[in-house]
Amino acid sequence: MRNEQHSPRPSEGRLGILLPGLGAVSTTFIAGVELVRRGISRPIGSVTQMGTIRLGKRTEGRVPRIQDFVPLASLNDVVFGAWDPFPANAYESALVSGVLNRHEHIEPIADFLMGIEPMKAVFDQNYVKKLEGTHVKPGTSKRAWAEALREDIRTFKAEKGCDRLVMVWCGSTEIYIKQSEIHQTIEAFEAAIDADHPDVAPSMLYAYAAIMEGVPYANGAPNLSVDFPALMKLAEERGVPIAGKDFKTGQTLMKTIIAPGLKARMLGLDGWFSTNILGNRDGEVLDDPGSFKTKEESKLSVLEHILQPATYPELYGKFSHVVRINYYPPRGDAKEGWDSIDIRGWLDYPMQIKVDFLCRDSILAAPIVLDLALFLDLASRAGMGGIQEWLSFYLKSPLAAEGLYPEHDLFIQQMKLKNTLRWMMGEDQITHLGLDYYLEDANTMAGV
Amino acid sequence: MRNEQHSPRPSEGRLGILLPGLGAVSTTFIAGVELVRRGISRPIGSVTQMGTIRLGKRTEGRVPRIQDFVPLASLNDVVFGAWDPFPANAYESALVSGVLNRHEHIEPIADFLMGIEPMKAVFDQNYVKKLEGTHVKPGTSKRAWAEALREDIRTFKAEKGCDRLVMVWCGSTEIYIKQSEIHQTIEAFEAAIDADHPDVAPSMLYAYAAIMEGVPYANGAPNLSVDFPALMKLAEERGVPIAGKDFKTGQTLMKTIIAPGLKARMLGLDGWFSTNILGNRDGEVLDDPGSFKTKEESKLSVLEHILQPATYPELYGKFSHVVRINYYPPRGDAKEGWDSIDIRGWLDYPMQIKVDFLCRDSILAAPIVLDLALFLDLASRAGMGGIQEWLSFYLKSPLAAEGLYPEHDLFIQQMKLKNTLRWMMGEDQITHLGLDYYLEDANTMAGV
Amino acid sequence: MRNEQHSPRPSEGRLGILLPGLGAVSTTFIAGVELVRRGISRPIGSVTQMGTIRLGKRTEGRVPRIQDFVPLASLNDVVFGAWDPFPANAYESALVSGVLNRHEHIEPIADFLMGIEPMKAVFDQNYVKKLEGTHVKPGTSKRAWAEALREDIRTFKAEKGCDRLVMVWCGSTEIYIKQSEIHQTIEAFEAAIDADHPDVAPSMLYAYAAIMEGVPYANGAPNLSVDFPALMKLAEERGVPIAGKDFKTGQTLMKTIIAPGLKARMLGLDGWFSTNILGNRDGEVLDDPGSFKTKEESKLSVLEHILQPATYPELYGKFSHVVRINYYPPRGDAKEGWDSIDIRGWLDYPMQIKVDFLCRDSILAAPIVLDLALFLDLASRAGMGGIQEWLSFYLKSPLAAEGLYPEHDLFIQQMKLKNTLRWMMGEDQITHLGLDYYLEDANTMAGV
Amino acid sequence: MRNEQHSPRPSEGRLGILLPGLGAVSTTFIAGVELVRRGISRPIGSVTQMGTIRLGKRTEGRVPRIQDFVPLASLNDVVFGAWDPFPANAYESALVSGVLNRHEHIEPIADFLMGIEPMKAVFDQNYVKKLEGTHVKPGTSKRAWAEALREDIRTFKAEKGCDRLVMVWCGSTEIYIKQSEIHQTIEAFEAAIDADHPDVAPSMLYAYAAIMEGVPYANGAPNLSVDFPALMKLAEERGVPIAGKDFKTGQTLMKTIIAPGLKARMLGLDGWFSTNILGNRDGEVLDDPGSFKTKEESKLSVLEHILQPATYPELYGKFSHVVRINYYPPRGDAKEGWDSIDIRGWLDYPMQIKVDFLCRDSILAAPIVLDLALFLDLASRAGMGGIQEWLSFYLKSPLAAEGLYPEHDLFIQQMKLKNTLRWMMGEDQITHLGLDYYLEDANTMAGV
Repeated sequence: MRNEQHSPRPSEGRLGILLPGLGAVSTTFIAGVELVRRGISRPIGSVTQMGTIRLGKRTEGRVPRIQDFVPLASLNDVVFGAWDPFPANAYESALVSGVLNRHEHIEPIADFLMGIEPMKAVFDQNYVKKLEGTHVKPGTSKRAWAEALREDIRTFKAEKGCDRLVMVWCGSTEIYIKQSEIHQTIEAFEAAIDADHPDVAPSMLYAYAAIMEGVPYANGAPNLSVDFPALMKLAEERGVPIAGKDFKTGQTLMKTIIAPGLKARMLGLDGWFSTNILGNRDGEVLDDPGSFKTKEESKLSVLEHILQPATYPELYGKFSHVVRINYYPPRGDAKEGWDSIDIRGWLDYPMQIKVDFLCRDSILAAPIVLDLALFLDLASRAGMGGIQEWLSFYLKSPLAAEGLYPEHDLFIQQMKLKNTLRWMMGEDQITHLGLDYYLEDANTMAGV
Repeated sequence: MRNEQHSPRPSEGRLGILLPGLGAVSTTFIAGVELVRRGISRPIGSVTQMGTIRLGKRTEGRVPRIQDFVPLASLNDVVFGAWDPFPANAYESALVSGVLNRHEHIEPIADFLMGIEPMKAVFDQNYVKKLEGTHVKPGTSKRAWAEALREDIRTFKAEKGCDRLVMVWCGSTEIYIKQSEIHQTIEAFEAAIDADHPDVAPSMLYAYAAIMEGVPYANGAPNLSVDFPALMKLAEERGVPIAGKDFKTGQTLMKTIIAPGLKARMLGLDGWFSTNILGNRDGEVLDDPGSFKTKEESKLSVLEHILQPATYPELYGKFSHVVRINYYPPRGDAKEGWDSIDIRGWLDYPMQIKVDFLCRDSILAAPIVLDLALFLDLASRAGMGGIQEWLSFYLKSPLAAEGLYPEHDLFIQQMKLKNTLRWMMGEDQITHLGLDYYLEDANTMAGV
Repeated sequence: MRNEQHSPRPSEGRLGILLPGLGAVSTTFIAGVELVRRGISRPIGSVTQMGTIRLGKRTEGRVPRIQDFVPLASLNDVVFGAWDPFPANAYESALVSGVLNRHEHIEPIADFLMGIEPMKAVFDQNYVKKLEGTHVKPGTSKRAWAEALREDIRTFKAEKGCDRLVMVWCGSTEIYIKQSEIHQTIEAFEAAIDADHPDVAPSMLYAYAAIMEGVPYANGAPNLSVDFPALMKLAEERGVPIAGKDFKTGQTLMKTIIAPGLKARMLGLDGWFSTNILGNRDGEVLDDPGSFKTKEESKLSVLEHILQPATYPELYGKFSHVVRINYYPPRGDAKEGWDSIDIRGWLDYPMQIKVDFLCRDSILAAPIVLDLALFLDLASRAGMGGIQEWLSFYLKSPLAAEGLYPEHDLFIQQMKLKNTLRWMMGEDQITHLGLDYYLEDANTMAGV
Repeated sequence: MRNEQHSPRPSEGRLGILLPGLGAVSTTFIAGVELVRRGISRPIGSVTQMGTIRLGKRTEGRVPRIQDFVPLASLNDVVFGAWDPFPANAYESALVSGVLNRHEHIEPIADFLMGIEPMKAVFDQNYVKKLEGTHVKPGTSKRAWAEALREDIRTFKAEKGCDRLVMVWCGSTEIYIKQSEIHQTIEAFEAAIDADHPDVAPSMLYAYAAIMEGVPYANGAPNLSVDFPALMKLAEERGVPIAGKDFKTGQTLMKTIIAPGLKARMLGLDGWFSTNILGNRDGEVLDDPGSFKTKEESKLSVLEHILQPATYPELYGKFSHVVRINYYPPRGDAKEGWDSIDIRGWLDYPMQIKVDFLCRDSILAAPIVLDLALFLDLASRAGMGGIQEWLSFYLKSPLAAEGLYPEHDLFIQQMKLKNTLRWMMGEDQITHLGLDYYLEDANTMAGV
């Protein structure tokens, strides 16, 4: 059961992390890594930095840190690059974002943050109505933009002396675009770029440029970006790992925690009402109906996939699922998600669950950026190209192979992630059967 | 990997379910089973009745109902018996309990419920201060009580023509008793019964009688009952399945759903404040400090086992965990659990989660009684004696083999339960690895 | 200080209460009055039925029931009439509405409810997009409709042998109509009726007909209805009491309770986010943006009037106020209002208040219908025509005389109501000064 | 109606504010006043500093600031003194308290705060079990302690060159002491001091010393302190204004806002469950059952007085009222109060209100200290001695004259406060009748 072909090679040299978007999430992520490197703060919420993994039987007591188990890039080897439609550097942007405490977490590393200046963005206001970018690449040719991005990537790699790169989309949510014919094949998509087709959004050009340059790509927004057959195929052919889409933070995170719990216990669902209030740039962008529709689609699909109405028509055949996002400036980045859940138990008696999550958007997203970057880089070194389903754990609308339903249950996703790491390193899979602790004559598998 | 020794034999004849305690939980359970049998209502919340199980690969589409997969007793073959320190029959008790709607769910089966009259209970007010039992077995000899219970069991089995029996404790929470020497060995415990030792609580006598009669036993309250070495050993020697303790309903259910989610994402915990308000007999009993202490111990241990402070000292090394239960009559059986959870994310930024669960105690407990009864009977027919760790899924303080930490994470418990069923029936374990969907050359196990 | 001119004459003979709309609110109101008359249930929430009024000094102990203090019509003298665009009688409508428990509150008075059949409504779907009325007056002439309504009123009065009538609008919310020229004078409005002007909504015709027939009119919805100069003037000229608009229930009730409290303590406000989830016909109607806009206007004005941003620019000069209404069928009539309030205290430190009101729309509205009907009838007998500002207590957007700001603070409204009753009956006003209890030499007014 | 005898004389010279207790509340208060004086921050929550008062008719538009209407002491004339059983100065204490942001609100005025050093306290651990004072007056003689306090007061006044003084108790909650014979007359109380009677708590000695020195006294904790006949009589005889007890902040503030609203609408109450979680020194002190009992008594009485069960037996005759306070360190001073309110409406249908108040204890208390100090000083200058019932607005358990029930309704309290100010300055009382806006022939009072 030893995995030979996909044993990851060691991490050597620098890893460049490229971020389209240098706003609240990116600066919280970048500043955080630097603060951790300097011993000023802790990377809480990051599985690569804080997590452990159980190996073998419960009684063996083998529980190494994940970073001691798989050969991840060290934070000390990471360098950062970014594109943004506004010229503010990471210091200025962090101040404006209002996430981090100025005295504690920005000023002490001001020099470092000032050193991170964004490259000019590929930006088109038709795709993000609420923003007016001023720091953008010239012209309107999508092909020229794609080439400019590839050039940026190569230049960054050379100038920073990177051994490897990864790219994680941290930009705004674009308007809703439905998959069309131009997204079905590599050829059609290339032709659409050349024809400046309106269904080719800027985020797709970033993804395209990354894959063409052999750079693993993850999409943190609900845009299509890399989520269509043409780019999936391209990534697979070129052996480039990809993941997406939409960082699983806040309300959806809670949903993918609680819904599996209700289902585990076969409690019925009449309705799930979710409302969000937030006041950051993300909230402003989502105040545009086009951008909201993109987000809504991503958020609504979650319950259906977890609860499987087709399998459980009596319990989950017809529940109401309403998701609202409200721009409410007093809240800033400190988003609040309120859920009211109407469930049914024994003999159809109704019960209710209310969840109020007073969270912080960028604080939840930042460690996801880090984990996706490090795990994609690991996958790359393990020769695993194409969709990384085991990273679904981090994403609201995870990619899955054609014909497979995506897994949204956080706990199945976690098991998939950890068993993938075990598999990479040649350790036994964990099944939690554990009957050999009780039955001497049980014919069970080892290591469970 | 085929399991030969523990393939369950078919269910034939009647299964008697014996319930110490004929209060809110028991009557809700009994009435529910009868309403389901008559097609009047649905057994929502019961995994044995509503659940499915995925077999093989995701693409195979094999997802049978659990009751079609393993040979469970049919609801039509179930008969009920009970003991109670009050003489009210199931009809009277259901009315008083205030759980079920009289017009819809009690009157239509009034005759059936009136037919279920409790046997006299083994009861001693020293162990449940708030109750004054009037329908009790005579005398004070613990040995005589134990014999009387065994006699009741045999009589019930014969009179009802049962093929098999199971017993599920649905009585009140007794005062806190610490394990002492008398609980360590079978011999010491037998001697303590003979000596009317105060550490032998009535619930222990029920468990003892059940095991001696070869009747599987589950404990739905936080009392010791069967949760000590002497009775565990006795159950193992006699090949009688046991499970316990304390039905996992309401607030603790939510806790074992949410805590694993926080841990999965490596979010830190500063504190978890839990308060309950309830107004039923259970609330009244727990208003006594002795009974509350028993309950508190059971409720407090949950977080520590899920969060593993020893493994994650930075995240979970020193959180406050406060649990309060308040007797508040307006609420009746419609218990409410409110949780305020203080967590930490990236760079130690604090966030909060509030959960308000407007639940119904007995509605959540009733399907657990059913599942435990049917699964214990299944285990018995599969020749699996002693602790059934795979039923931890239903319990607040699950039993585990000596030297093993108990699993509290609802999702690990669910996987353990389902993989145990797969194992019983010779199906492959599910690991959620699933790399063979993506990597042609991956050397993975089958069926994952 | 004795009031001579406006001392109410006694209530004699029957009072007919006419209700445009025979839906959830009306049937809950009608059934309730009948249940109370039969001694089956209690008129909780009704100030006329349950309230008391303090007279004189605190130490006098004079606290009569309001119904013993002012000469209100007795419930036994009330008869009911209604119009509705659907033909269902009160029994059928009550069943469909899902508010009252069938066994307890509908069946015992089924005969009575079946006897209340709606008259055909003046209805035009252009004003309520989501409803398709089938039980409607013929034609499209607004003048003819108005005349038909007047005819209905006269017929009802004669057939039922009523001494007096009042009308309370309990119909759906119409689309948003801005006051225009046709609403400014009686003449312009009459001309607009004759010209079938689109700004003359059906609810205005009901109000017009009522006033022309000398019937006091209250408006329970946020439509204009009687809320414009032409009809106010008409009511004043004809000495007919009017009140409106929009029953103050649920979330807005809580808002007018809490906001005065925050202001009393000079706590600042950054934002107030309000969301509603409801699943009844009202929710469905409000799912139409036109009807929602009417409601939103009514709900939004509340805070501004209570908090007086012009007077307190530092505290209330620029808060966010967001109101959302969501149609969510699982909830039925059991509406839920969730508020998240961001306040500021000493040195601008932020604090939050969350209010979750699990209410029932019609249960809160029904006693308001009763009180408005009885108090309007009282005002009529006291010779008080035109706007009854003292009934603001019951209304979200209370009418006020030109040049006066409306009072939204529930407690000022309550004082206004009670001092008006005291004034009617020649009792001293209460000021809560009360210094004469403490200072012998204080020169204070009597009776305070 | 002009008030001659009690027109306040102007404020001239310095006002010294003396604070027993230099903890979180006191330092937040003192630092806040200094920050406001320097223009760094704002006195939000203070009625004396931010409030306005309407004079005359609504249409007159006369709404001056309260501080422009009555002759209050200016903040610039205020100086501070304190006693504390720990030697930390105001700077050190503010840092430890964890209320104010160090960078923004403590360091900029560090010098000023360091200059405020506490005098040695009269302290006895028997009355506050959880604290071990180290900075205390010597000996155990209560008479000697009282004299030492009087000496402190005189010395402070002379050294600081004060024209007048007031004292506000900001110390910890003492154990529960029931009024006994020694509290009934001045003579008995003096004798008890001389006899070192255990029912004479330290807080009573502070109140006694203040009154004897002619210093107005307010009690911010639920201790008896000044709340018994002997000291009330003494204050009256000596013409010294007094107020108490227990600052109305957080949960009780919300209760006295919401309960009057429910009662205004005649909604019934089944139960009110209140739980608090807090982690400051106050929380620690209240973890002692003796101190908690004192607090509980103060908190429980509120609802009964507002809802008047004797007057409304059907609505408020038998509700459950449970109040819990939980020490929960993660929360620090950022106290959280959660209320679950079970109400009844029309026909007894149940509804629920949940209120979650994420407040800050000291932020809510600090402006109350300021207002009580300035208003007591005003009362003193107006020749109003004894109980100041018009300051009930600020207090959980307000004092009232013998034979009078205390007013707990925040809105009645507010009217009482404002009408008292109007009375002092010879303005008309406001009654909110306002009929003269509508009825030309109405015989109403002026100015309403």
